[in-house]
Amino acid sequence: MGCMMTIDLNCDLGESLATRLVGNDEGIMPYLSSANIACGFHGGSPTVMHNTVQLAMKYGVAIGAHPSFHDIEGFGRREMNIPPGEVYDLIIYQVSALAGFVRINGSKLHHVKPHGALYNMAARDEIYAKSIVDAIADFDSSLILYGLSGSELIRAGIKRGLVTCSEVFADRRYQDDGSLTPRTKPHALITRTNDAVEQVIRMVKEKTVISENGKTVNIKAETICIHGDSEHAIPFGKEIRTSLEREGITIKAFNGA
Amino acid sequence: MGCMMTIDLNCDLGESLATRLVGNDEGIMPYLSSANIACGFHGGSPTVMHNTVQLAMKYGVAIGAHPSFHDIEGFGRREMNIPPGEVYDLIIYQVSALAGFVRINGSKLHHVKPHGALYNMAARDEIYAKSIVDAIADFDSSLILYGLSGSELIRAGIKRGLVTCSEVFADRRYQDDGSLTPRTKPHALITRTNDAVEQVIRMVKEKTVISENGKTVNIKAETICIHGDSEHAIPFGKEIRTSLEREGITIKAFNGA
Amino acid sequence: MGCMMTIDLNCDLGESLATRLVGNDEGIMPYLSSANIACGFHGGSPTVMHNTVQLAMKYGVAIGAHPSFHDIEGFGRREMNIPPGEVYDLIIYQVSALAGFVRINGSKLHHVKPHGALYNMAARDEIYAKSIVDAIADFDSSLILYGLSGSELIRAGIKRGLVTCSEVFADRRYQDDGSLTPRTKPHALITRTNDAVEQVIRMVKEKTVISENGKTVNIKAETICIHGDSEHAIPFGKEIRTSLEREGITIKAFNGA
Amino acid sequence: MGCMMTIDLNCDLGESLATRLVGNDEGIMPYLSSANIACGFHGGSPTVMHNTVQLAMKYGVAIGAHPSFHDIEGFGRREMNIPPGEVYDLIIYQVSALAGFVRINGSKLHHVKPHGALYNMAARDEIYAKSIVDAIADFDSSLILYGLSGSELIRAGIKRGLVTCSEVFADRRYQDDGSLTPRTKPHALITRTNDAVEQVIRMVKEKTVISENGKTVNIKAETICIHGDSEHAIPFGKEIRTSLEREGITIKAFNGA
Repeated sequence: MGCMMTIDLNCDLGESLATRLVGNDEGIMPYLSSANIACGFHGGSPTVMHNTVQLAMKYGVAIGAHPSFHDIEGFGRREMNIPPGEVYDLIIYQVSALAGFVRINGSKLHHVKPHGALYNMAARDEIYAKSIVDAIADFDSSLILYGLSGSELIRAGIKRGLVTCSEVFADRRYQDDGSLTPRTKPHALITRTNDAVEQVIRMVKEKTVISENGKTVNIKAETICIHGDSEHAIPFGKEIRTSLEREGITIKAFNGA
Repeated sequence: MGCMMTIDLNCDLGESLATRLVGNDEGIMPYLSSANIACGFHGGSPTVMHNTVQLAMKYGVAIGAHPSFHDIEGFGRREMNIPPGEVYDLIIYQVSALAGFVRINGSKLHHVKPHGALYNMAARDEIYAKSIVDAIADFDSSLILYGLSGSELIRAGIKRGLVTCSEVFADRRYQDDGSLTPRTKPHALITRTNDAVEQVIRMVKEKTVISENGKTVNIKAETICIHGDSEHAIPFGKEIRTSLEREGITIKAFNGA
Repeated sequence: MGCMMTIDLNCDLGESLATRLVGNDEGIMPYLSSANIACGFHGGSPTVMHNTVQLAMKYGVAIGAHPSFHDIEGFGRREMNIPPGEVYDLIIYQVSALAGFVRINGSKLHHVKPHGALYNMAARDEIYAKSIVDAIADFDSSLILYGLSGSELIRAGIKRGLVTCSEVFADRRYQDDGSLTPRTKPHALITRTNDAVEQVIRMVKEKTVISENGKTVNIKAETICIHGDSEHAIPFGKEIRTSLEREGITIKAFNGA
Repeated sequence: MGCMMTIDLNCDLGESLATRLVGNDEGIMPYLSSANIACGFHGGSPTVMHNTVQLAMKYGVAIGAHPSFHDIEGFGRREMNIPPGEVYDLIIYQVSALAGFVRINGSKLHHVKPHGALYNMAARDEIYAKSIVDAIADFDSSLILYGLSGSELIRAGIKRGLVTCSEVFADRRYQDDGSLTPRTKPHALITRTNDAVEQVIRMVKEKTVISENGKTVNIKAETICIHGDSEHAIPFGKEIRTSLEREGITIKAFNGA
């Protein structure tokens, strides 16, 4: 008797603003097991949030909050220097707002994954990480924390007793220490679909990644991020899902088990 | 054996933005029984909301959400023409966001009172009124709806089965039909504290108001709005409370009983 | 000796926000003679404005300001009830901000065309129309006012002595009185490219339009609006331009002559 | 024959938002020689800008633009990490917008002083400083640059050939190297009016300041910042002005001579 090998495929969704579409949420949804829904601070609006929650439910995709710095103009990608208490409060605000839409539709919030600059700062900064984790745990300690594999955020989550879910990327290159090759370096991105799929399968099946220097490095992969706003998001999502299933891996929202 | 006569004193709070103070929340709080806390769409921010929730709890004041059109620049006082579904969604978003701060502090949300232009439009427009009422009832049907006495909003709330609380104003003049004298007309405001106090006592004890034409008109007064952002808010709040108590009226958050 | 027949083709551009692209500005630019550039109140940002000004200059397209209500979330399409003085001020602010980018690039602002709900309200409301016109004239009376053909806005512009440019639509149906068939009615939109092209050619050459009831109605057409944010914007823009040129009509920014 | 000793008194104004008043602009204006007017990115709105320009003109106060990061919620006090090109663009946008209000009122923009976090970052960061200076010089090279005395911003302005104006503070303590004692340290603020007035007079007459360690340090003081949003702003402004005039110093907008 073998065990079933599973992996979670997540994507950032609901980031449109009025007529300004970001990505193709309806197109990518069928390939996902979990959705991180923007909460109005970098994208989304109350109505976009409502629609995206219903879309995720239609496809049986687990719903997570995707909170951000308050920065519509910069799409939440600009690092901001704010006190830890304010970080805590903006998490409570956004997670709670999204939870409302989930609740009136009769579902339950599954996880929280910070967005953009907040995600990056929380990955390396212990204080930001703790503020985020405390907010999530105080709001609902059954929520799962999604964060960069090997990051301060995941460490802070474990310390506080949250269930954590380590995120890896299909299309990003890794360094010898298991961290992401910075985007500023050449070869930071994996552009060939085949290479990305191969990396993902190795991450899931062998729990390793081949670094930019060719070394085999251990990595914890519990969810894979699919970027929804690229031109090739949909064929890429489909290819990842199909290839994983062909390898006998089941696509399934992370549940901590 | 007599019954205890009670009335609710409410005030709009938490409307500051960073260093831009609106009113003196700490100064007025001791005179109130319920607080309508801004939810970030016309004033307030996550941190201001958090602080104001804690301030209300410190004084034992019942906490309500004070949702608005999304209009920081205009302080939520500009009427906007948006579809009913978007009105519904902005209520869910804001009420739910505030409920998060209330919950992590171990308290419970008590009521919802729309702000500014949204309050005014809901008072006269059946469709807006229904959108607001539906959102509140779908989110939590135990929440009490605060609205203008005699308005479409109160009517819609009753129809849907919500507990409603009819609001009157100490410092506004009323017309023969029980509606407010529009601000554009002279004498719309009652400027002498004595006159305001007298009007309030009559509203509570006799359930009537003397109209601008001197007629005695029936009015339903379940909560009295104290404006917190005027220069004389605090002495005025104190005077109203003291005078009501002197008349044997107990100041107490409305509970529908 | 005949005169050269000319027409202006305009499009709303620079409406993107960070990564949220609206339309394909670079793709549509070659087919235009004038560009209405968003000023940050419904779309655009300082950097998007700067880039779009440079893009228009690269293609020799006349640059206009495209001011709006302050409503990023609603893309400037929500009608707002604000005092005439505030309308005046928001026009000054946005037109002047865009003029700065034009100036540092060594060009000159050519026209102003209000956006969305502001355009629609100014078309029917004399007071809004006057506020907009006064702001433009006070700022720079050599600017050309673009507005809906036959509207209050055009009337107010003429009254004040501005050069005006009457806008018609290729893909909208007209009523017997020369006004647009409201979008809420069926057949409001012309969906077949051939029909749109035919309507445009008739508008330019014969100064008439066939109404929804089949009547031939006079219409003043000095500029044609190309919608840049539809899926088919680029082939449609190309088709319109090519067809007009085939008819011997020169595409050229309106100059009032 | 001696020369007339003059000094400029500046204050940040027009930072209110709708009903959220910041400071008392009308009360402080009579004591100033130059006003830095917020441009809508951290405070102010088109209408507040217009009113503040007219108020400054009424009192013969020189008008400057006071541009900021786009951060209403944080009042422009949160440091943001954005590319230099975006800093350049946000300066063009805001300075140009304010220049429009100045122009329609028949006056001329006098200077530019960055606000809050942008001011602080430009004081220490050469790249930010250069972006700001380039934007001002490209827009109008006759504008005077106001910046922290001894800062990178002033250095960058001189390098580019702008007229610069070195700002000092009446109510801040200085370190031995002439830099400000950080606000995080005790004694950073001078709280007694007498001490502040004495420091200002010494700065102007002797071009020195007594550091926190009691050393006499050289300092370049061409304009003195009066904080307009404190409770005691108006009596303090009056006291500073009166004391300077008593010493034979003329209050006059800086003109570079």
